[in-house]
Amino acid sequence: SQPHRIAVIAGDGIGTEVMPEGIRVLDAAARRFGIGLQYDHFDFSSCDYYEKHGKMLPDDWKAQIGGHDAIYFGAVGWPDKVPDHISLWGSLLMFRREFDQYVNLRPARLMPGVTAPVVRRDGSPRQPGEIDMIIVRENTEGEYSSIGGRMYAGTEREIVMQETVMSRHGVDRVLRYAFEVARSRPKKHLTSATKSNGIAITMPYWDERVEAMAREYPDVKVDKFHIDILTAHFVQRPDFFDVVVGSNLFGDILSDLGPACTGTIGIAPSANLNPDRRFPSLFEPVHGSAPDIAGKGIANPIGQIWCGAMMLDFLGHRQAHDAILGAIESVLEPGSQAPRTPDLGGTASTTELGQAIADAV
Amino acid sequence: SQPHRIAVIAGDGIGTEVMPEGIRVLDAAARRFGIGLQYDHFDFSSCDYYEKHGKMLPDDWKAQIGGHDAIYFGAVGWPDKVPDHISLWGSLLMFRREFDQYVNLRPARLMPGVTAPVVRRDGSPRQPGEIDMIIVRENTEGEYSSIGGRMYAGTEREIVMQETVMSRHGVDRVLRYAFEVARSRPKKHLTSATKSNGIAITMPYWDERVEAMAREYPDVKVDKFHIDILTAHFVQRPDFFDVVVGSNLFGDILSDLGPACTGTIGIAPSANLNPDRRFPSLFEPVHGSAPDIAGKGIANPIGQIWCGAMMLDFLGHRQAHDAILGAIESVLEPGSQAPRTPDLGGTASTTELGQAIADAV
Ligand SMILES: CC(C)[C@H](C(=O)O)[C@@H](O)C(=O)O
Ligand SMILES: CC(C)[C@H](C(=O)O)[C@@H](O)C(=O)O
Repeated sequence: SQPHRIAVIAGDGIGTEVMPEGIRVLDAAARRFGIGLQYDHFDFSSCDYYEKHGKMLPDDWKAQIGGHDAIYFGAVGWPDKVPDHISLWGSLLMFRREFDQYVNLRPARLMPGVTAPVVRRDGSPRQPGEIDMIIVRENTEGEYSSIGGRMYAGTEREIVMQETVMSRHGVDRVLRYAFEVARSRPKKHLTSATKSNGIAITMPYWDERVEAMAREYPDVKVDKFHIDILTAHFVQRPDFFDVVVGSNLFGDILSDLGPACTGTIGIAPSANLNPDRRFPSLFEPVHGSAPDIAGKGIANPIGQIWCGAMMLDFLGHRQAHDAILGAIESVLEPGSQAPRTPDLGGTASTTELGQAIADAV
Repeated sequence: SQPHRIAVIAGDGIGTEVMPEGIRVLDAAARRFGIGLQYDHFDFSSCDYYEKHGKMLPDDWKAQIGGHDAIYFGAVGWPDKVPDHISLWGSLLMFRREFDQYVNLRPARLMPGVTAPVVRRDGSPRQPGEIDMIIVRENTEGEYSSIGGRMYAGTEREIVMQETVMSRHGVDRVLRYAFEVARSRPKKHLTSATKSNGIAITMPYWDERVEAMAREYPDVKVDKFHIDILTAHFVQRPDFFDVVVGSNLFGDILSDLGPACTGTIGIAPSANLNPDRRFPSLFEPVHGSAPDIAGKGIANPIGQIWCGAMMLDFLGHRQAHDAILGAIESVLEPGSQAPRTPDLGGTASTTELGQAIADAV
């Protein structure tokens, strides 16, 4: 069969350091499971590219990467070179929209060897397996809209407005995806993030669509929480949650907060999916380009590697996904002799940790 | 001198149970510090009132309570009787707007005898005093707007929009308040919650106003975080924060998350302030009407009592505030023989705990 065509965009900062490790582990999994992978590397969607060309992407970027099966992405952004809203709306946020990646998927899972900053009610530590949730975020509309503007600029009467936009099409498709994910898991529990008591126009609509969709999934247990108290529950009883679905903004917040509660924000992956497969999906670690540690060769590559596992899963290779995740867990395991990067309390380099995971695969 | 005129609105559920304890403690402080307090009780702004009158408030509510010095508020809402968006927009959210209570103030403080669900990096528990922040929330505009609506209703093309509105007037006044609070505290550290990388029209404006105002307060140390990573920092290093300012929605989220991290969400107070003092300010506990435990006499009255302390502070009685807070801390102290309500692990009633705090004052 044809190899999968992967567009590789390492981007900025530590993106360029963790990417080789991601590929190293992908190659190990590909060998073990007989998967064909073909990589094409691109230098655009980085602030260095912007400094050279005055834009984040070449004019024909869609032709260059639109035919690939997936985009394997490092990190973008370097505020000292290019302001975030330019670098991000000019690359990552553009990919999400133009490739209609309407689902952003992020697991938050307590891993062995990682101390979670949230404890049980009695003060005792939470154990691996105890927290295992997945956040499903709407990724193309909602609060991240391009409609709005400013009037009476520069005066005391200055006013700025921005529209939140929710469409039936946009809301229903991400809800359907979330219900399907919930149905596929043992707990079959879906939590919807809302704020219909305060944001009283768009959010009641969101609730309405959740209720309508719930009637099609009688086997899925559904509840909803307002976003304020939901963040409190993430801290107080993260073990309660299974699949959590939210609008673009609420999903953004919860998919940082969830991994923070499991202590994995530095190693968490995320997938920007076009489930229709008309366009490539994009896989990127949650961490950014980390200018403070870039160039030192000490960045933890696990986020990038975990993303690779999600990518293989999406491309139909569930076993390879599980093998990579198992390898990550085995090197994190408290007893393991595997090298550790400084953030994990060791002195190993990015490459040493990447190599150890590749070997474990 | 004239006594302060307090409008008392107990509202729904446990609001009616904790309110008498709030007043008991206020009276104790008033006696001790020679403060004159005069209470007027109102039965509106409750779902029972709605069931009798078909509305949350009488037509002349402004005349009835608009001349008071403060509103001492219990809790409103009983979803089985009245949907939240009706009961809340018809009472609490209406007060905030009509009385121009543009600052919502919420402390998040680690109290003695309360186990915080977030621990230090090494897994050890955080100690009282280690977390002590105050969240300053914009309370009248922003994401909580009444502009928007629905088109193509009931069809596949259905679309819903809601405007976020930020005015120079509205943003600057709450920022100024936050800078003043920061300046008055030892750390003089102000954190601004933003999301200008994603919500790229309103939020860059917020940042711009923060920068402009910061130039007027060179003695205040200012930083900003995007709301997603900010929620992560609340969990990972809550001790870093001093004063945190956010828009209506971001402030709402952070002022539940903050008290959740200190384990005090059941006892946290909040103040809805009209700093101009043209209208009465409103003091309400963060907890709601709690239908599940209402009528049992076991609700913890500390949130209501702490609100009373904030009210006295706002009315110019700092010492009385400190005395009430000291009394709360003394009964929570692990060694103390004071009665405890079930949420604190005891079997005491609402009244017993209220009486103990009044005695300590
Ligand atoms: C009840 C709700 C509308 C309200 C808000 O969102 O403002 C509440 O969460 C609060 O924080 O006072
Ligand atoms: C960088 C930023 C625009 C982005 C977002 O808000 O979507 C990021 O936080 C994310 O979650 O991928």
